[in-house]
Amino acid sequence: MTRYKLVLEYDGRVLVGWQRQDNGPSVQAAIEEAVRRFCGETVSPHAAGRTDAGVHALGQVAHIDLAKPTTTDTLRDALNHHLRPAPIAVLSAEVAAADFHARFSAIQRSYLYRILNRRAPPTLDRGRVWWVPAPLDADAMHAAAQVLIGTHDFSSFRASECQADSPVKTLDSLAVARRSDEIEVVAKARSFLHHQVRNIVGTLRLVGTGKWDRAAVARALAARDRAAAGETAPAEGLYFLSVTY
Amino acid sequence: MTRYKLVLEYDGRVLVGWQRQDNGPSVQAAIEEAVRRFCGETVSPHAAGRTDAGVHALGQVAHIDLAKPTTTDTLRDALNHHLRPAPIAVLSAEVAAADFHARFSAIQRSYLYRILNRRAPPTLDRGRVWWVPAPLDADAMHAAAQVLIGTHDFSSFRASECQADSPVKTLDSLAVARRSDEIEVVAKARSFLHHQVRNIVGTLRLVGTGKWDRAAVARALAARDRAAAGETAPAEGLYFLSVTY
Repeated sequence: MTRYKLVLEYDGRVLVGWQRQDNGPSVQAAIEEAVRRFCGETVSPHAAGRTDAGVHALGQVAHIDLAKPTTTDTLRDALNHHLRPAPIAVLSAEVAAADFHARFSAIQRSYLYRILNRRAPPTLDRGRVWWVPAPLDADAMHAAAQVLIGTHDFSSFRASECQADSPVKTLDSLAVARRSDEIEVVAKARSFLHHQVRNIVGTLRLVGTGKWDRAAVARALAARDRAAAGETAPAEGLYFLSVTY
Repeated sequence: MTRYKLVLEYDGRVLVGWQRQDNGPSVQAAIEEAVRRFCGETVSPHAAGRTDAGVHALGQVAHIDLAKPTTTDTLRDALNHHLRPAPIAVLSAEVAAADFHARFSAIQRSYLYRILNRRAPPTLDRGRVWWVPAPLDADAMHAAAQVLIGTHDFSSFRASECQADSPVKTLDSLAVARRSDEIEVVAKARSFLHHQVRNIVGTLRLVGTGKWDRAAVARALAARDRAAAGETAPAEGLYFLSVTY
């Protein structure tokens, strides 16, 4: 058996998320089926991050084990062929060490959150951004975001259904920057709690509109209570960006 | 009556183009209907460029005349409200001079053409880029593109159904640049022949793959014969970018 590392891009709009589910197409099931069509083997793909329904990926990483001898170029092209018409693509395939694990070997994950901040609703980017028509102060959001950097109990930003053993996580960086009509939030950490990025973005929005300041974000963090922080930003603005191993 | 200049963004994927047609939703008809819902008036929107089916816009400009007193903010927001769920948005509305004409007052139009140049097919950008899996040399494409700058008989790059009086146009600039997996072509001219940008891009693709060189593009231009140039690149990669007045 050879282990392959796959880098994946997908459009979350029509997917129920990474994980196989009964209620619609998942990335995991699509990869499994594409491998089956390619070589008849049954694989169990593991991913660096189990993205939710509606969440996109620009650089998700997964691994699979194959007995069939093949080249990485053939594997990439064949999987892309068999993945059609699902909006899922294998950007690259490479041979990985036998002990490489897409999820457990990861030392840092990066997420991007895109906010469209203008009066006009999205057209080309519908389903790919969170539309916030009220003016947001990206500099204030960035300054307040720095309160969250480091190792903290992130219970205030944790979904009730989160299955992590501990609410303590280490946030390596959290950058907020405006690019024309868009505000981009990039979050980096070894791992995240369920909905952590979306709950942080929903909270930073309160800072962007001027309702909250930096101290209010610090108080929300210290409260260790989900009700103390802002709303959960919608899935459509979130992108799994990349993984460092 | 007050004349308003509207800057429009739209997703061409589900539109038959700018101009009203019987076979599907057009931008022109959508704007007319949105104005009717807003104030009951019947307008005839004129656009800077009559984009084809599948062609997108990031900065199309149109003008309309209204009797109803309103503010530009109200007009923009009300049209956006009534345009839903069509993927068409009014980015801005401003009062224009009575003799302003979105089409005839334009002194330069800019188009963007996006090529996705990688082995993996598009996912998030499906219908928004031309997917060319073969490696393209963007520098060679840019160098060859410079042959087309200036005033020429562009018959070799003109659609047979083109209604322009003359095939002579002045191409102000044509820039080809790679950004990661994408090649962006930006073309600027006072006006373009029908399919001119798409026919130029289809021809530059031959240069990108190494089949053609700069001299071959010059020969295609000199032939003044559509059959002498490359294929018509698909509508999905084309964006009406902006207009200078």
